[in-house]
Amino acid sequence: RETVCIFGTGDFGRALGHKMIQSGYPVVYGSRSTQISNLIPKDAEVLGHAEAAQKAAVIIIAIQRQYYNFLTKLADVLHGKVLVDISNNLKLNQYPESNAEYLAQLLPGSKVVKGFNTVSAWALQSGTLDASRQVFICGDDVEAKQMVMNIVRGLGLTPVDKGSLLAAQEIENYPLQLFPMWKFPIFLSLGLGLFFFFYCLVLDVIYTYIYENNDFSFFIAISIPNQVFPAMALTLFGLVYLPGIFAAIIQLYRGTKYRRFPDWLDKWMLCRKQLGLIALAFAALHAVFTLVTPLRAFTSWSTSTKIISQALNNQTEPLDHTNAWLNDSYLALGMLGFFVFVLLGISSLPSVSNSVNWREFRFIQSKLGYLALILCTAHVLIHGGKWFLNPEAYKWYLPNIYMLALVVPCIVLVVKCVLILPCVDKPLTKIRQGWE
Amino acid sequence: RETVCIFGTGDFGRALGHKMIQSGYPVVYGSRSTQISNLIPKDAEVLGHAEAAQKAAVIIIAIQRQYYNFLTKLADVLHGKVLVDISNNLKLNQYPESNAEYLAQLLPGSKVVKGFNTVSAWALQSGTLDASRQVFICGDDVEAKQMVMNIVRGLGLTPVDKGSLLAAQEIENYPLQLFPMWKFPIFLSLGLGLFFFFYCLVLDVIYTYIYENNDFSFFIAISIPNQVFPAMALTLFGLVYLPGIFAAIIQLYRGTKYRRFPDWLDKWMLCRKQLGLIALAFAALHAVFTLVTPLRAFTSWSTSTKIISQALNNQTEPLDHTNAWLNDSYLALGMLGFFVFVLLGISSLPSVSNSVNWREFRFIQSKLGYLALILCTAHVLIHGGKWFLNPEAYKWYLPNIYMLALVVPCIVLVVKCVLILPCVDKPLTKIRQGWE
Amino acid sequence: RETVCIFGTGDFGRALGHKMIQSGYPVVYGSRSTQISNLIPKDAEVLGHAEAAQKAAVIIIAIQRQYYNFLTKLADVLHGKVLVDISNNLKLNQYPESNAEYLAQLLPGSKVVKGFNTVSAWALQSGTLDASRQVFICGDDVEAKQMVMNIVRGLGLTPVDKGSLLAAQEIENYPLQLFPMWKFPIFLSLGLGLFFFFYCLVLDVIYTYIYENNDFSFFIAISIPNQVFPAMALTLFGLVYLPGIFAAIIQLYRGTKYRRFPDWLDKWMLCRKQLGLIALAFAALHAVFTLVTPLRAFTSWSTSTKIISQALNNQTEPLDHTNAWLNDSYLALGMLGFFVFVLLGISSLPSVSNSVNWREFRFIQSKLGYLALILCTAHVLIHGGKWFLNPEAYKWYLPNIYMLALVVPCIVLVVKCVLILPCVDKPLTKIRQGWE
Ligand SMILES: Cc1cc2nc3c(=O)[nH]c(=O)nc-3n(C[C@H](O)[C@H](O)[C@H](O)COP(=O)(O)OP(=O)(O)OC[C@H]3O[C@@H](n4cnc5c(N)ncnc54)[C@H](O)[C@@H]3O)c2cc1C
Ligand SMILES: Cc1cc2nc3c(=O)[nH]c(=O)nc-3n(C[C@H](O)[C@H](O)[C@H](O)COP(=O)(O)OP(=O)(O)OC[C@H]3O[C@@H](n4cnc5c(N)ncnc54)[C@H](O)[C@@H]3O)c2cc1C
Ligand SMILES: Cc1cc2nc3c(=O)[nH]c(=O)nc-3n(C[C@H](O)[C@H](O)[C@H](O)COP(=O)(O)OP(=O)(O)OC[C@H]3O[C@@H](n4cnc5c(N)ncnc54)[C@H](O)[C@@H]3O)c2cc1C
Ligand SMILES: NC(=O)c1ccc[n+]([C@@H]2O[C@H](COP(=O)([O-])OP(=O)(O)OC[C@H]3O[C@@H](n4cnc5c(N)ncnc54)[C@H](OP(=O)(O)O)[C@@H]3O)[C@@H](O)[C@H]2O)c1
Ligand SMILES: NC(=O)c1ccc[n+]([C@@H]2O[C@H](COP(=O)([O-])OP(=O)(O)OC[C@H]3O[C@@H](n4cnc5c(N)ncnc54)[C@H](OP(=O)(O)O)[C@@H]3O)[C@@H](O)[C@H]2O)c1
Ligand SMILES: NC(=O)c1ccc[n+]([C@@H]2O[C@H](COP(=O)([O-])OP(=O)(O)OC[C@H]3O[C@@H](n4cnc5c(N)ncnc54)[C@H](OP(=O)(O)O)[C@@H]3O)[C@@H](O)[C@H]2O)c1
Ligand SMILES: CCCCCCCCCCCCCCCC(=O)OC[C@H](COP(=O)(O)O)OC(=O)CCCCCCCCCCCCCCC
Ligand SMILES: CCCCCCCCCCCCCCCC(=O)OC[C@H](COP(=O)(O)O)OC(=O)CCCCCCCCCCCCCCC
Ligand SMILES: CCCCCCCCCCCCCCCC(=O)OC[C@H](COP(=O)(O)O)OC(=O)CCCCCCCCCCCCCCC
Ligand code: HEM
Ligand code: HEM
Ligand code: HEM
Repeated sequence: RETVCIFGTGDFGRALGHKMIQSGYPVVYGSRSTQISNLIPKDAEVLGHAEAAQKAAVIIIAIQRQYYNFLTKLADVLHGKVLVDISNNLKLNQYPESNAEYLAQLLPGSKVVKGFNTVSAWALQSGTLDASRQVFICGDDVEAKQMVMNIVRGLGLTPVDKGSLLAAQEIENYPLQLFPMWKFPIFLSLGLGLFFFFYCLVLDVIYTYIYENNDFSFFIAISIPNQVFPAMALTLFGLVYLPGIFAAIIQLYRGTKYRRFPDWLDKWMLCRKQLGLIALAFAALHAVFTLVTPLRAFTSWSTSTKIISQALNNQTEPLDHTNAWLNDSYLALGMLGFFVFVLLGISSLPSVSNSVNWREFRFIQSKLGYLALILCTAHVLIHGGKWFLNPEAYKWYLPNIYMLALVVPCIVLVVKCVLILPCVDKPLTKIRQGWE
Repeated sequence: RETVCIFGTGDFGRALGHKMIQSGYPVVYGSRSTQISNLIPKDAEVLGHAEAAQKAAVIIIAIQRQYYNFLTKLADVLHGKVLVDISNNLKLNQYPESNAEYLAQLLPGSKVVKGFNTVSAWALQSGTLDASRQVFICGDDVEAKQMVMNIVRGLGLTPVDKGSLLAAQEIENYPLQLFPMWKFPIFLSLGLGLFFFFYCLVLDVIYTYIYENNDFSFFIAISIPNQVFPAMALTLFGLVYLPGIFAAIIQLYRGTKYRRFPDWLDKWMLCRKQLGLIALAFAALHAVFTLVTPLRAFTSWSTSTKIISQALNNQTEPLDHTNAWLNDSYLALGMLGFFVFVLLGISSLPSVSNSVNWREFRFIQSKLGYLALILCTAHVLIHGGKWFLNPEAYKWYLPNIYMLALVVPCIVLVVKCVLILPCVDKPLTKIRQGWE
Repeated sequence: RETVCIFGTGDFGRALGHKMIQSGYPVVYGSRSTQISNLIPKDAEVLGHAEAAQKAAVIIIAIQRQYYNFLTKLADVLHGKVLVDISNNLKLNQYPESNAEYLAQLLPGSKVVKGFNTVSAWALQSGTLDASRQVFICGDDVEAKQMVMNIVRGLGLTPVDKGSLLAAQEIENYPLQLFPMWKFPIFLSLGLGLFFFFYCLVLDVIYTYIYENNDFSFFIAISIPNQVFPAMALTLFGLVYLPGIFAAIIQLYRGTKYRRFPDWLDKWMLCRKQLGLIALAFAALHAVFTLVTPLRAFTSWSTSTKIISQALNNQTEPLDHTNAWLNDSYLALGMLGFFVFVLLGISSLPSVSNSVNWREFRFIQSKLGYLALILCTAHVLIHGGKWFLNPEAYKWYLPNIYMLALVVPCIVLVVKCVLILPCVDKPLTKIRQGWE
């Protein structure tokens, strides 16, 4: 394999050098000081920048951007060489142009390729590369890019060609992000969750404590979470399908689909996937918290108390058929709803969504999604139905938490019903097909 | 970035133009009417076809196939240009040749590239591209293809090179499909499910109503589904491994593996994955429906009735050890079987199956698959065992549903046992290694 | 499509030929005997090696490596041709150089491309290609590689370019492996599992049998597994994070990160993913085995016995609030721990880990991982807490199994607490940034 030159004997330079030597590439370092420290890989040569550059066709610039200007002095030596810019910044869009474009401006005679910046020095060294096996590459010179991609493959990594050097900005921003799309949904659910939690605490623990003088503070561990989680799940699930409703109304009102939606709606529509997955997470928690109920000390205590009191009164209740029907059907609806919900989740795994086409994906996400929403809403309606008109359900005149949770999904389902009426659907379809 | 020309100011043309302008490509439209409507992206120019074509090297033909013939008049202008055919048809294999090949025949001097047809206009505009991030590209001219792939990358999408223009037919058919491989398995399970459902209804609800005068209609919500789902799961699971058995017998009988299987067997073998996943879905439903049992009003009613009647009779039963053994072991077998079943499911996620090799995949699918089948069959055998010889189990002389469910898996397991006998396995192995 | 030549009419040669003819490639075989057997695809020609080679630009060598030397005689005919080496060996690293490199040495005038060896003959024929849809290709000549990749695409498979011919060794070893990374973790957990199982058997079944004369042998089906599984899960989970602790201590002690870790630590760190997934599998089994408890015959027997005895004594116990708190909180902690655990599992699916960056991946694996470990450890501590100081818990002076299971995670958590103290963390961070 051909010699590779690395400028800079810092953390990343050394790690990359180690890996290259392991993979059979002769490595020569270009450094300000040519003293060989014992940190530098044993089989590597360390020379001055100019000499090192002459020994290789590909030069990896493992130096921070702010020191790049010293390279202009080497412009002659670097002429025609492939320079690999591996630098990252500390902030998103820190500089007006990307580091790679800046390097290309400094050295117009060299072929600049961006790459390797998404790989961590530690991952390279320790071999635990799971999240950085893909190396994004971009550059204007096709052959230079090909050379760098071969090196990437030689190191056992997967090169991903991102096109021309214009993509460098994006590639540089990539490793600085921490779940950018998840931020809003997570904060929203945190806020909503806290609200629901205290609402429940007041109604279930504090109210009982004040009026019935019962200390049910241990409800905080399971009972209250198991009211908050499903309420969150249902509300967020509704919020996934609400923006689609707004979009349809706006399109109908405007009579065209070619004007941009208001900004908030745009953003909202783009984080529906995240909202949906968070809703799924809460639904899964609800399912597990519910299934665990029979194991609770509280459950066995209340069951045995009830049975014993019946036994002591010599009394056996007949089976209440209506109740059995209602109870079984809300459970069945909940489970079926959850099942379809999980299918939505599975289909949003990147590898699954990549292997279905747009029509299939929309069938799952839109048709099955509404089916799941209907099932879940029905689950809660049947579970809570008999209490809606019962004043006892309204402690301190406040509605129960599941009534709050029903608001958004019910709105969504009702408006959606209107939208699929033929007289509304027809013009909408035309608008969506691009008609004026 | 270089100017791109789009022929056709229809829905797709506009959506693509919007996106291109956003991504920094100058866009010029070629249209029959050069009047600028306000639907067309603001920064785009609209010209006649010939003038527009001259301004760009890449021309995207956003026009339906049936109007292509007008392009022959522009043959001169289009000579040497890269034409991107993005058209879809309304039906699978609507025309004898693909649209792209038709275009290439019309304009032999131009370089035709197929692409973008799997992307939806709406997805492009709204940015929700999950299932259409991959843009399949094919074409005979490598450089033309490279140019189009760079544009694809420039728009933030992932080009997937599908080879020469011969692949156009396949690419054009792709977006028209709606789960083609799932159709048969789904109809099969619908049919089977309905049969099992009514069978159960008759035995559990109608029979009880007639002979015991008990109204157990609420069993429709949970009890009956929880007999139908596992029966479906087990039968379909058996049907996954049955074709392999047939294949082996046919190969043994013919003494060669080089003659095609009968058509029905071929099709059956190709939809085993789908059958297996549907079986898994039913098994998961069975698991959840089972775990929810203790929460049912009916369960708490029957438990308390039983306990109270024992208490009133002053009687406590001793623990029946045989029953405890049987009960615990069928539950344990069911859970272990389900566990291995889920592993099969996980390993058939595209990203997981891509990262194991053929030997590993077959180990999971074939070895672990049979293990799961054995565990699940044993689960049902032990659960139902004591009833097989009990005439009471046969209401109206009909076998119980789980007895029906056992038929297919038991056949599979018995024949498989024969097939792995050394005296049968040896010739079979030779046949499979290509011997005559 | 262009004619392809295949040398060798064996199993693989025929299967590939069939597939190629199906996909529209004219096929000509080069064979020692030009008699057409009826195993050979109908539309293929069979010629002598030299004649066959002249008819095509690409020649697929479907012959075992040991017979390659006869090809030297054909060196003239094969000059300039693309030879595709598809051979596999029987053992890992059987020969000093890879088969493809050996072929290239034999025929220096030909362009050798390695490929197709990961595809199974049977998969090709039967169309069930799930785990061998990716065809790894390598070779020194870019154009030759491109030609082979086009054929791969033409067959409906996905070529994956692995770079120069140096990658052939790796590609040849790939299909011989059977979960190499999983071996150690699986043996470890088998050993540990057996130990825990017999330990539990002794304490729960044999001890009870000897001292209380109770036959609880049926505990082997559910109760004992449900002590072994969670203990395994917790111990393995601890073992996932233990090597990181060792690594930190070693780095602190050495003052540098550039010296290799001892070999055992290196290996251990590289199989943490597998250890973690096995831990997850055991945790899932624990969850399901726990949730199924209320369905056990033993549970309903012991519940009703307890209730009846209370009823017969006319006695109802009040709710023990402390117990309710402890019970609910250990359950809640277990469920939350399991939930985060499953998130770790989901994020290690290849397609998910590929779509997050290194920072995000480490956030999930390291931060959320420790969170899950804390939750699970707290779950067990609270569940078992009251027994630690109770001599009754120590049958035969042996600690209970969950006490053993707590050892590793508790050590990990305590040492980690020390490591994140600012006075330790600061120098560690510097070392990790590459400082001396
Ligand atoms: C568990 C879970 C996982 C999810 N995963 C994903 C995911 O991976 N990816 C993802 O994107 N979403 C995901 N979601 C979110 C959600 O399911 C989808 O966004 C879904 O497509 C929304 O359906 P819809 O019918 O409301 O929206 P849309 O189909 O977007 O419809 C909304 C509105 O957009 C307009 N519109 C729709 N189609 C067209 C068209 N062809 N032309 C013009 N205008 C049109 C209409 O006005 C329509 O009313 C997930 C949700 C959940 C619960
Ligand atoms: C949950 C679940 C998920 C599944 N996912 C998938 C999936 O992703 N992909 C998939 O393909 N299937 C999947 N399946 C289906 C099934 O597991 C596999 O098809 C499995 O390989 C069948 O095993 P088998 O031993 O019966 O079949 P095979 O190994 O195909 O054997 C069947 C017959 O084919 C012949 N045969 C087998 N090997 C050879 C050989 N080397 N040479 C010549 N002849 C041979 C023999 O006659 C053999 O008897 C799934 C099933 C389930 C339950
Ligand atoms: C369900 C499950 C799934 C898992 N899936 C995966 C998976 O897919 N891939 C995977 O790799 N692991 C996986 N794991 C294992 C585990 O979660 C990870 O390895 C995790 O990163 C370990 O975290 P840590 O903080 O101990 O390790 P590390 O972050 O590796 O830290 C260990 C030590 O390495 C050194 N170190 C860490 N970072 C640096 C640095 N930047 N520079 C120098 N030295 C450094 C330090 O000395 C540190 O103490 C999985 C675990 C579980 C339970
Ligand atoms: N560390 C990572 O995990 C990682 C990952 C991806 C990308 N990167 C990028 O890699 C680059 C280097 O990072 P690093 O962690 O290796 O930094 P570092 O350890 O600080 O090393 C920087 C090296 O640059 C050279 N240098 C410093 N000042 C210079 C100057 N004035 N003139 C010329 N050379 C100078 C020095 O090498 P000599 O002493 O040999 O001259 C020094 O060792 C950064 O741009 C970073 O964004 C790092
Ligand atoms: N819509 C999608 O989601 C989508 C997705 C993928 C592929 N496609 C494909 O894109 C193509 C166009 O679809 P579309 O939805 O944009 O259709 P459209 O809205 O009907 O637009 C078609 C355009 O073609 C031009 N045109 C029509 N008749 C013509 C004629 N006789 N001669 C010359 N030009 C004519 C018109 O443009 P001028 O008035 O400017 O001349 C018209 O706007 C189709 O082949 C379709 O399969 C569409
Ligand atoms: N079978 C698979 O699933 C599979 C998968 C991947 C790779 N491979 C590789 O493909 C290669 C062939 O495997 P196979 O299963 O096809 O083996 P096979 O059935 O034994 O066929 C080998 C063929 O090589 C030819 N041959 C044998 N001895 C020869 C000699 N002394 N001189 C010249 N030609 C000779 C023969 O063809 P003629 O009689 O026509 O001359 C024979 O049919 C092996 O390297 C194997 O590793 C096989
Ligand atoms: C109530 C709990 C519900 C659990 C549901 C499990 C259902 C499994 C059904 C899979 C349906 C897949 C739809 C695929 C769409 C498609 O066409 O997808 C097409 C793709 C691509 O296929 P091809 O490329 O082969 O054509 O197929 C797949 O990706 C298969 C995905 C399999 C997923 C299995 C996941 C298992 C995870 C199990 C979790 C179980 C938890 C159990 C808890 C109790
Ligand atoms: C009874 C419920 C059972 C739940 C089972 C969870 C088991 C997790 C065990 C994972 C086994 C993976 C086999 C991989 C084969 C392989 O080598 O695969 C190899 C691949 C590739 O690895 P490399 O590329 O790193 O080598 O590894 C993987 O893909 C890892 C897959 C991880 C999957 C985790 C999925 C979590 C989903 C959890 C659902 C939980 C539901 C719980 C309900 C109660
Ligand atoms: C207690 C049981 C817990 C079950 C937990 C289900 C949680 C689902 C939450 C998903 C979280 C995903 C984190 C993704 C990180 C990320 O940014 O990931 C980013 C990626 C890529 O996204 P983009 O490329 O679109 O940006 O997103 C994903 O991959 C989404 C993964 C979805 C996974 C859904 C899996 C469903 C399987 C369900 C099993 C349910 C079992 C139920 C048993 C009772
Ligand atoms: C496995 C599937 C499910 C089961 C077994 C289940 C079971 C239950 C049960 C038993 C209750 C009553 C709880 C109580 O009395 O306190 C309940 C309530 C509820 N469920 Fe579910 N459910 C499931 C899925 C879902 C899903 C997917 C959603 C929504 C997305 C949901 C939303 C709700 C809501 C909002 C409540 C009312 C909470 C309250 O008591 O205030 N459930 N569910
Ligand atoms: C979590 C795992 C599982 C558990 C806890 C479980 C539990 C049970 C229980 C309690 C029953 C008795 C139901 C009744 O009395 O009505 C049952 C029956 C049955 N199970 Fe399972 N099971 C599991 C997994 C499976 C799997 C994976 C299959 C098959 C693929 C399966 C197939 C069956 C069948 C066919 C029956 C008979 C249904 C009937 O009553 O007619 N089970 N299971
Ligand atoms: C769905 C989540 C979980 C639930 C419902 C759950 C429930 C339980 C229950 C009820 C017990 C007491 C069993 C008994 O008394 O015999 C227990 C014990 C235990 N759990 Fe969990 N758990 C969960 C998750 C986990 C996880 C994720 C781990 C560890 C990784 C874990 C580790 C343990 C251990 C070590 C024990 C002690 C086993 C023994 O009795 O010796 N659990 N769990």
